Amino acid sequence: MRVTGLLEEIATIGRDRITGGYRRFAFTADDVALGEWFAARVRALGADVTVDRCGNQWAWWGDPDRAAARGRPGVVTGSHLDSVPDGGPMDGPLGVAAALVAVEALRDNGILDEAIAARGRPLGLVRFVDEEGARFGLACSGSRLLSGISAPSSVLALRDAEGVSYAEAARAGGLNPDHMGRDDETLRRVGCFVELHVEQGRALALPELNVPVGVASAIRPHGRFRLDLAGRADHAGTTLLADRDDPMLALATVISVARAAASGHGALATVGKVEVAPNAVNAIPSGVRAWVDVRADTEQQVRAVLVDVEAAIGQAAVQESWTAATVFPADLAAEVAGAVGAALGSGPVPVLPTGAGHDAGVLAQAGVASSMLFVRNPTGVSHSPAEYAEPDDCEMGAQALAAVLTRLLAVE
Amino acid sequence: MRVTGLLEEIATIGRDRITGGYRRFAFTADDVALGEWFAARVRALGADVTVDRCGNQWAWWGDPDRAAARGRPGVVTGSHLDSVPDGGPMDGPLGVAAALVAVEALRDNGILDEAIAARGRPLGLVRFVDEEGARFGLACSGSRLLSGISAPSSVLALRDAEGVSYAEAARAGGLNPDHMGRDDETLRRVGCFVELHVEQGRALALPELNVPVGVASAIRPHGRFRLDLAGRADHAGTTLLADRDDPMLALATVISVARAAASGHGALATVGKVEVAPNAVNAIPSGVRAWVDVRADTEQQVRAVLVDVEAAIGQAAVQESWTAATVFPADLAAEVAGAVGAALGSGPVPVLPTGAGHDAGVLAQAGVASSMLFVRNPTGVSHSPAEYAEPDDCEMGAQALAAVLTRLLAVE
Repeated sequence: MRVTGLLEEIATIGRDRITGGYRRFAFTADDVALGEWFAARVRALGADVTVDRCGNQWAWWGDPDRAAARGRPGVVTGSHLDSVPDGGPMDGPLGVAAALVAVEALRDNGILDEAIAARGRPLGLVRFVDEEGARFGLACSGSRLLSGISAPSSVLALRDAEGVSYAEAARAGGLNPDHMGRDDETLRRVGCFVELHVEQGRALALPELNVPVGVASAIRPHGRFRLDLAGRADHAGTTLLADRDDPMLALATVISVARAAASGHGALATVGKVEVAPNAVNAIPSGVRAWVDVRADTEQQVRAVLVDVEAAIGQAAVQESWTAATVFPADLAAEVAGAVGAALGSGPVPVLPTGAGHDAGVLAQAGVASSMLFVRNPTGVSHSPAEYAEPDDCEMGAQALAAVLTRLLAVE
Repeated sequence: MRVTGLLEEIATIGRDRITGGYRRFAFTADDVALGEWFAARVRALGADVTVDRCGNQWAWWGDPDRAAARGRPGVVTGSHLDSVPDGGPMDGPLGVAAALVAVEALRDNGILDEAIAARGRPLGLVRFVDEEGARFGLACSGSRLLSGISAPSSVLALRDAEGVSYAEAARAGGLNPDHMGRDDETLRRVGCFVELHVEQGRALALPELNVPVGVASAIRPHGRFRLDLAGRADHAGTTLLADRDDPMLALATVISVARAAASGHGALATVGKVEVAPNAVNAIPSGVRAWVDVRADTEQQVRAVLVDVEAAIGQAAVQESWTAATVFPADLAAEVAGAVGAALGSGPVPVLPTGAGHDAGVLAQAGVASSMLFVRNPTGVSHSPAEYAEPDDCEMGAQALAAVLTRLLAVE
C-alpha cells in the first residue's frame, strides 16, 4: 500500500469540478462516503471500525479496554478527512493515508503482534469528524466534544448556512445529540496520539532546513471573530450619499485595519469570509458580516489586533472561537523527532511551532500526550486546490510515522 | 377592487420569513405563481393573457392587431412583479395593481367600451418579466429582448448563481430561446406606454413638493460594473503577510475609492454585491468579485467614477450593463402631468428625473412613447423590506393612472 495510491482512491469524493478543490463537509453524503472508505480500508487491515458518541471513527488492533485497565493505554494515530471549502487533497487525508500505510507496515514486520502479545500495548487509528469546521464554523468539533473542551450545548446549537443545526446534522448522521459530549470511556483508551499532517507553510522546504518531515512544538493562539456590520437597505440609484447608512464602508475599514494591525503587532489577520445581505448589485446592503481570523505568537498580540479593528469601526466583535496557545509535551516531541530522524538516517529533525489548529492540539489541551509530524510542503500553500506534497515525501512521512509508532509501542 | 387589497393577495408569494423581504426571481416557481395570479385577475376583468416570445404577459381590451393596422395602436399600462433579493412589496406590484384598478374603473364607467367602439383604440395591460435582473444580473431583460435593445445571444448566455443559463431558465419556463428577440408583432400594438411606480427616493414627500403623485422626466445614465479581483488561496494561520496575495485588500480599496469618487464627481456609486471564493474563515481568498453600480446626471460623471476605481486597483472592470440617459417624451410627460393634476384637483404635478431604470425607460429608448407616474414614498426607502407607500397614496395613484389612460384613449 502506498500513501499516494490511497489518496487516489478518494480523489473524486467531494471534489468540485470547476475549482478542482474539495468540499468535504461534516455529516454530508461525501463525508459518509469518506467514512465508508476508511472503514473498508481498516477492515482490510484486520480491524473493525466503531463510531464514538461524538461521531469520530476508531479502529483498534489489540483490546484497548483491557490494556487501559492494566495501565497500558494504546498508541493512537490518525487525522481527519473533511476539508475547508475548496481545500486541497492533503490536509487531513495525508495523515489518514500515512497512518494506514504505517499500520500495514507494523503488521507485516511483526511489530504490532509483538506489542500486543509481549506488552499488551494496542494500536489505534482514529478519523476525527469535522476538523475544519467548514460547515458550522467551529474547528475540531469532533475532538472538542470528545474531550469536553467545548460544551455540547454550544456546539449542538451551531447552524450551517442553510440553517441546519449541528444537532440536526449529527442526528441525520446516525448520532444521538443527547449522548454527545466528553467521552471518558473512549479517552481512557488513548495513551498517546500522533498525527501526521502536510505542513501549512514552507519552513521545512527552506534551504536552511530542507527536510521531508518535521515535528510540531506548539500551536500558536488563534481567535475567530465575527463582525456584524449593520446598515439600512436602500436603492442604489436614488439614495443620496449623505442619506446612506452603507455597511460596506465599514467592511472596507475592517479589511484594511485588520491587515495594518496584524503587520503592526507581528500577527497574522485574515478576512476570508464575508456575507452581504441582500447582496444585490442595485441595493445598498442592509448588513454585512465579516469574519476575522487572527493568530500570533502570544495571546496579547492577537487581542491587540482585535482591539484595533473594534476601535476603527466603533463596535465589538463576536468571538466565535478561541484556541489558546498549545504546547505539545516537549519530551514526547523530542522522542518523536529522534525517531523520525533515525528513520530518515539523520539526527533529530526540526521541532517547530505552527499557526494552524489540529485535533492533536485539542487532545493536548485535554491532557492527552500528543505529537505531530509535518510533511514538507514545497510551496507552503494549503487550504487551496494547489496544496501539494511530493509523493516521495508522503511515503517518507508514512515511514517516519511507522518508526515513531514502533518506538511508542515499545515503551514498557 | 382596491390597490392595497390586490397587493395583499400576493403578499405571501416569494416572501422570506426571516428578512420579511421578497425574493421573486425570474422563471422561478414564485414567478410562475405571480403570473398565474396576474392571469386570473385579468380574466376577471374580461380579457385573456398571452405571453410574448420573450416571456412578458399581455392582456388586451379591444383588438390590438386590427387597431394597429388602422394606425390606432393601443394605450398600454403595467409594470413588473419580480423583485430584487429582499425587496419591498411596492416596486413593481404597485404598478400592476394600480393598472388593474384603473382598467376596472374604465370598464365600469364606460370609457373603455367607448374608446374601443367609437375610436377603435384598444387598452393593453402588460406584466414585464425580470425587470430587476436579480437572477441573471441584467435589469429589464424582458423589455430589452422584446425591443431589441439587448441582443438575444448576450442575454441568453447569462448565468445565475447556480450556473443555470438564461436560455435554460426560459426554456424551463415554457419559452423557446430560439424565438426570443425583437418582436415587432407585439411592439406594433403599443401606441404608448404608461408605467406607475413607487418613487425610489423622497422628492415627492419633501415639504417643498408634498404631492401624492409625480411624473418622470428622465432616467439618469447607469452602469453596472464587475471587478474580478484575483488572489492566491492559502492558509490563514500559516502564510506570512509578505507571502500573501490577498484579493480582499483590493476589495477594501474598491469600496472606499468608489465612495470617494462618487462624492468627488457628484455621482452615486454602490458596492452592493460581493462574492468571495472559497469564503472560508481560515482561508485567504483565491478571488473576490465585486459589483459597482454607478449613476449620475451625465455619462461623463459615471465614467469618471469608474476610471478612479480602475486606477486605484490597476485593473479594468467588466461592464455588465450600460443604460444611457433616457429622456421621456416631454410632450407626453406634460400631458400626463396635467391629467394627473386634474385628477388630484390641482395644476400639473411635478415632472422629475430619477436614477432608477425601468421597462418604460427601455421602451422609450426603443422609440415607444412612454411615460411614468411615481407614487410618493415617505421614507424614500426602496429595494428593502421597509419600502412603503401610504394606502391613500396608492389608491390616488390608481385614480391618477385611470385619468391618464382616459386622456390617452380619447386621442382621435
